[in-house]
Amino acid sequence: MSERQPRLARTDFRVFRAIPTRWHDNDVFGHVNNAVYYGWFDTAVNAWLVEGGFLDPATSAIVGLVVETGCTYFESVAFPETVEAGIAVERLGNSSVTYRIGIFRQGGEQVAAQGRFTHVYVERVGQKPVPIPAPLRAAMASIQS
Amino acid sequence: MSERQPRLARTDFRVFRAIPTRWHDNDVFGHVNNAVYYGWFDTAVNAWLVEGGFLDPATSAIVGLVVETGCTYFESVAFPETVEAGIAVERLGNSSVTYRIGIFRQGGEQVAAQGRFTHVYVERVGQKPVPIPAPLRAAMASIQS
Amino acid sequence: MSERQPRLARTDFRVFRAIPTRWHDNDVFGHVNNAVYYGWFDTAVNAWLVEGGFLDPATSAIVGLVVETGCTYFESVAFPETVEAGIAVERLGNSSVTYRIGIFRQGGEQVAAQGRFTHVYVERVGQKPVPIPAPLRAAMASIQS
Amino acid sequence: MSERQPRLARTDFRVFRAIPTRWHDNDVFGHVNNAVYYGWFDTAVNAWLVEGGFLDPATSAIVGLVVETGCTYFESVAFPETVEAGIAVERLGNSSVTYRIGIFRQGGEQVAAQGRFTHVYVERVGQKPVPIPAPLRAAMASIQS
Repeated sequence: MSERQPRLARTDFRVFRAIPTRWHDNDVFGHVNNAVYYGWFDTAVNAWLVEGGFLDPATSAIVGLVVETGCTYFESVAFPETVEAGIAVERLGNSSVTYRIGIFRQGGEQVAAQGRFTHVYVERVGQKPVPIPAPLRAAMASIQS
Repeated sequence: MSERQPRLARTDFRVFRAIPTRWHDNDVFGHVNNAVYYGWFDTAVNAWLVEGGFLDPATSAIVGLVVETGCTYFESVAFPETVEAGIAVERLGNSSVTYRIGIFRQGGEQVAAQGRFTHVYVERVGQKPVPIPAPLRAAMASIQS
Repeated sequence: MSERQPRLARTDFRVFRAIPTRWHDNDVFGHVNNAVYYGWFDTAVNAWLVEGGFLDPATSAIVGLVVETGCTYFESVAFPETVEAGIAVERLGNSSVTYRIGIFRQGGEQVAAQGRFTHVYVERVGQKPVPIPAPLRAAMASIQS
Repeated sequence: MSERQPRLARTDFRVFRAIPTRWHDNDVFGHVNNAVYYGWFDTAVNAWLVEGGFLDPATSAIVGLVVETGCTYFESVAFPETVEAGIAVERLGNSSVTYRIGIFRQGGEQVAAQGRFTHVYVERVGQKPVPIPAPLRAAMASIQS
C-alpha cells in the first residue's frame, strides 16, 4: 500500500519497557489481536508519564486527551512472548505531542509493529486545551527523535 | 494537526451496527478508552463478514490479516451509552481491503470517532497473500463508498 | 464437583439486558473467554445502577466496591451471538449486596453461565464501609429473589 | 460475609509469575477492575502449561475447559504496579483440576486477592471429558498444596 511506512528499528526509540503478553491478548487466530497493541501504547506512554511524576491519574488537573492513534503491523506476536515497547517523541507542539511507538519481539532489531499516539493537553474539568507544562515539555524534548 | 482528517457523517457509511458500551470500556478518565474503539472496529467488520457467510473464524482457509489501523477521535463517549458503528469499503485491492469506520453517538449526525482498518487476505496456514475470493469481493464492492 | 451449583433458569432473575458479543470476546479456543463474563456482570449491574440514578461513576460519594465474584460455566458462547444478562439480588445486608447473575443464549431457558457478585458500599474517599442508602436499598429489595 | 475465605499468604503457592499492570486494567474508580484479575489467573495458569510443554493453544488435541472460577478481593491494586501471581494445585481429579491463585502486591506477604480456577480436560473436537494425561498430572501433582 502506498501509505505503508518504512519499518523502524531500535535506534528510532528512546525509552523501552517490557510488556509480557497475556493469555487473552491472543484472538481466535492465535496471535495478539490488533486492538491490544493500542493498550500497550497507552501503557508505555502513561507509565513513562506516571513514573516521571507528570501524571497522577486520580488528581492531575491537566491531562493528555488522545486525539489520534495509528498502527502498522509487520509481524505477529503470540502469548506467552514478552514484547518491548519503545517510545520517542516525534512532534512536540504547544498543546499537543505525538509519540512514535515500536513493539519489538525478544531480540528483534526491527519493530513487529509501529504506531503513533497523539495527546492534546487539556484541563481535566472542561477539557479546554492548555499549553504543555514546562517540566513535562522538557522531559518530552529529552526523548525527541 | 496537519494530518487531521475532515470529520465524516452518516452518509459516508453503508452498514450500521449498534454496540452498547460496557462498564470497563471507560478508563480512569471516565470516558471510553482509545483502544476500545479498535475492538469496536474489529467487531463491526468481522460481524459483517461472519453474518454474510464470508468468515467462519474456526474453519475459513482464507482470512483477513490486519496490517494497518488508525483512528481520529472527535468527541468522547461513556458507558452506558450505545454507539453505532458504520462501515464502508474505501479501497478494494487485489488481496487487500481498507474499511472506513465511523462511531456515532445516539442521534449523532457526525462521527464521534472515525477510523480505517486494512485487511490483507492470506491463507490461514502459511499466511501467504491471496486474491480476495470473488463472492466476498462482490460484497465488498456493494458497500464501497 | 461437589461445589457445583444447580443450574438456574430465567425465572431466577428479575432484570434482563442484551449484551452483543464482540470479536475479541472469543479467545484462541473460539469461545468467549471466561474472564469476559465478569465484564458482562459488571456491565449488567452497573448499567442498572446508573440508569436507576443510583450511581454516577464520576461524582457519587458512595460507591460499591467489589469484594467477591464467582462464575460457573455450563455452555459456551461465541461471537457474534447476543447474550442476555439477568440479575437479581440474592442477599441484601447492611453495607453489602450480593447479586445473582445469569448469562443466557438467545432463546435459552437455562443459563449458559451463572455467577454472583458482591458489592460493599464505601465512601469513595477513604473507602470506609457505609450503610446502603435507603432509596438504593429499596430498589435492590424490589429485585430480590 | 459467612462465605468469606481466610486470606492466603505466599507459602500457600508454588509457582510465581510477575504481571505488570497495564493502563486500562484500571477502571473509572482508579483501581484494577475486578474482571481483570481473571485475565491474570488465565495468564498465570496457561503460561505454566505452555512453558511446561503441556499446552500448545494452536494444536493440542486435549485442552482444559474452564468450568468454574471465583475471586475474593482484599486490597486494591493500581497501574503502574507490577503484581505477582502465585499458583498451586488445590484439587486434582481424574479429568479436572482446581488451581488456587493468589495475587500479590510488590513485597506483600498476604494476597491482595485470591481465587480458584477449575479446568476440565476435554477433547478439543467434541469437548468430551478425558483423563488428564499422565505427564501433565505429574506436573500438577508437583505443585499441589
